[in-house]
Amino acid sequence: MGSNEPKKFELIEIGRVDNDYFEEIPDDYKEDISKIEVFKKYEEALLGIEENSHISVMCWFDRSDRDIQKVHPMADDSNPLTGVFATRAPIRPNPISYTVCELVNREGNTLHVKGLDALDRTPVIDIKSYKRYEIDDPEFPEWAPE
Amino acid sequence: MGSNEPKKFELIEIGRVDNDYFEEIPDDYKEDISKIEVFKKYEEALLGIEENSHISVMCWFDRSDRDIQKVHPMADDSNPLTGVFATRAPIRPNPISYTVCELVNREGNTLHVKGLDALDRTPVIDIKSYKRYEIDDPEFPEWAPE
Repeated sequence: MGSNEPKKFELIEIGRVDNDYFEEIPDDYKEDISKIEVFKKYEEALLGIEENSHISVMCWFDRSDRDIQKVHPMADDSNPLTGVFATRAPIRPNPISYTVCELVNREGNTLHVKGLDALDRTPVIDIKSYKRYEIDDPEFPEWAPE
Repeated sequence: MGSNEPKKFELIEIGRVDNDYFEEIPDDYKEDISKIEVFKKYEEALLGIEENSHISVMCWFDRSDRDIQKVHPMADDSNPLTGVFATRAPIRPNPISYTVCELVNREGNTLHVKGLDALDRTPVIDIKSYKRYEIDDPEFPEWAPE
């Protein structure tokens, strides 16, 4: 490995979430619309995005703990203690989320998306086109939801 | 939006890629095995990961330009100039990648993964379990590969 002193990098917020989730994400968030206000500085990076029915939204979960390495998945104590890298829990060393959302509408630098699991005013750090992975018979732990 | 001065965050490297891609990613990378050396400090966060056949690997593309907002997708000039947020190009304000890989094997804090599109010594910033999104008839731009 040579030097394996962990490096550090500067992440910049490129937009911000605007919705009604002030304290927690409701169970039926997949049906709700959130707005993403992309900062004017990055508006050019949206060129052509409306040709996609779905996009991948990456947020920085600024209210998540960064020091916990193991969790009971799905916040259910009956699920076995599991490393955060084996889950999609918001708690992790770099609290980055990745959610595929329906792109309902774009108005200038504002995106209306359906199914975003992020609280109001959460920083958005990246947006990508949606990529399908066609995987035959993936294997998951028993606690996994699907 | 209230204050929409972009915030900044400190990202920490949690591991590093070890493979033979020193200059560029070959076309057939999907068949190749890379190693991910997760730093000892984060080994606990891997607990149970071997129960997954596939994982999502997020890297920080430290050799990518952060200032370019539009690209010709797939590095093909005949594709229309497109905002980076409407693509998965490595060039973007926060050069984070997201790739679903087969988890071939785990040895302690080393993961052997198949299909990682990252150069040797690329910083790894997060690992998540693989999540399937079952989307009926997604729409993509004409240039999209699938």
